[in-house]
Amino acid sequence: MTIPFDFTELAGAFVSPVRYGLYLSPSMALFDFVGSARGTWHVTRQSAVVGASIALFPALTIAEGTLTSQPPANWLIKGVRSNMRYTHQAEAKALVSQQAPLGRAAATCAALIPIKKSDAWWALAQDERRHLFEEQSRHIATGMDYLPAIARRLYHSRDLGQEFDFLTWFEFAPEHTQRFDNLLVALRSTAEWTYVVREVDIRLVKNQPQS
Amino acid sequence: MTIPFDFTELAGAFVSPVRYGLYLSPSMALFDFVGSARGTWHVTRQSAVVGASIALFPALTIAEGTLTSQPPANWLIKGVRSNMRYTHQAEAKALVSQQAPLGRAAATCAALIPIKKSDAWWALAQDERRHLFEEQSRHIATGMDYLPAIARRLYHSRDLGQEFDFLTWFEFAPEHTQRFDNLLVALRSTAEWTYVVREVDIRLVKNQPQS
Repeated sequence: MTIPFDFTELAGAFVSPVRYGLYLSPSMALFDFVGSARGTWHVTRQSAVVGASIALFPALTIAEGTLTSQPPANWLIKGVRSNMRYTHQAEAKALVSQQAPLGRAAATCAALIPIKKSDAWWALAQDERRHLFEEQSRHIATGMDYLPAIARRLYHSRDLGQEFDFLTWFEFAPEHTQRFDNLLVALRSTAEWTYVVREVDIRLVKNQPQS
Repeated sequence: MTIPFDFTELAGAFVSPVRYGLYLSPSMALFDFVGSARGTWHVTRQSAVVGASIALFPALTIAEGTLTSQPPANWLIKGVRSNMRYTHQAEAKALVSQQAPLGRAAATCAALIPIKKSDAWWALAQDERRHLFEEQSRHIATGMDYLPAIARRLYHSRDLGQEFDFLTWFEFAPEHTQRFDNLLVALRSTAEWTYVVREVDIRLVKNQPQS
């Protein structure tokens, strides 16, 4: 089957990142999350958890982005992989030893959960945010309980001026869907989550390659 | 006198931030640092401290930016005001009580010092970076010693994929130039600075309004 509009292929054609000297380091990368008619991931459910929803779209593609690309889409948001903001050294070591990579063949389910926190959160000092995040809410420790079943990746959007602060991305096998839901219940009951002013929960299933 | 090419006025004309839903919060703002033939600040000296230099330019203007504006310029870099990354609550309170605002009439001297840190720095966990930054290098405490004479503002560029990670901006009266140089000597001698792989020191004087 031919897919007439494949953002994965198109993304490179918009504007070369090299042209603006953007994101030349492989550890730094900007991505476009493109909600459109066709794409790599089929959307099975889209629901607003806190605050306003976003435009509905049937499929999602994550493509390498540039600051200037603006493809036609139902919804588009930009996120950048960046350095750790709260994780301490011992936690990082534990995470690395236990976490699973993205793209596992069995992990055909995914969730994209864009999150925006309040101005009050961002006005807090670094130690206050860390205390709320881990010592009070056990964000890292809770996530660890679900490794390696639930693979995750965080993209930052706030400094790019996007409508959400973070894009959290999760991949898991269909049989781990209930465990993933339990993880969300645990995180959403924390003190940290009282600072969340907008959250949308998008569930997806990988489109199988067609011959 | 008529200035034929004023980036301050032009900046708003490129692309409306509202068009892409960018930076609608007043506490979040993207800025273009435009090095060109004319501008708000006259460049008196430009020197590479660590690593490669940048294009020379006679004047600098700081204008509200968008992710897509690309005005003609000798040099252009984007930076965003963002949340604190290392400052603890007690330090933030002390800073607020002692720091001076930008734009003071007497502060006709300025410095723009773009800085890039190594991949090794960015691979460190949050507690390791904080320890190097303050407990070892006393970055915040040293800066406090020079308040309120030296007003400062930090812009973040790394997550925007720019060629430097930070743009540090300082304003001071001409009689405090030696004190400012002392501040730089103190910071550049720290353990934190061993992670700096590129640094350019640009000194400027405010162009007086002409009638």
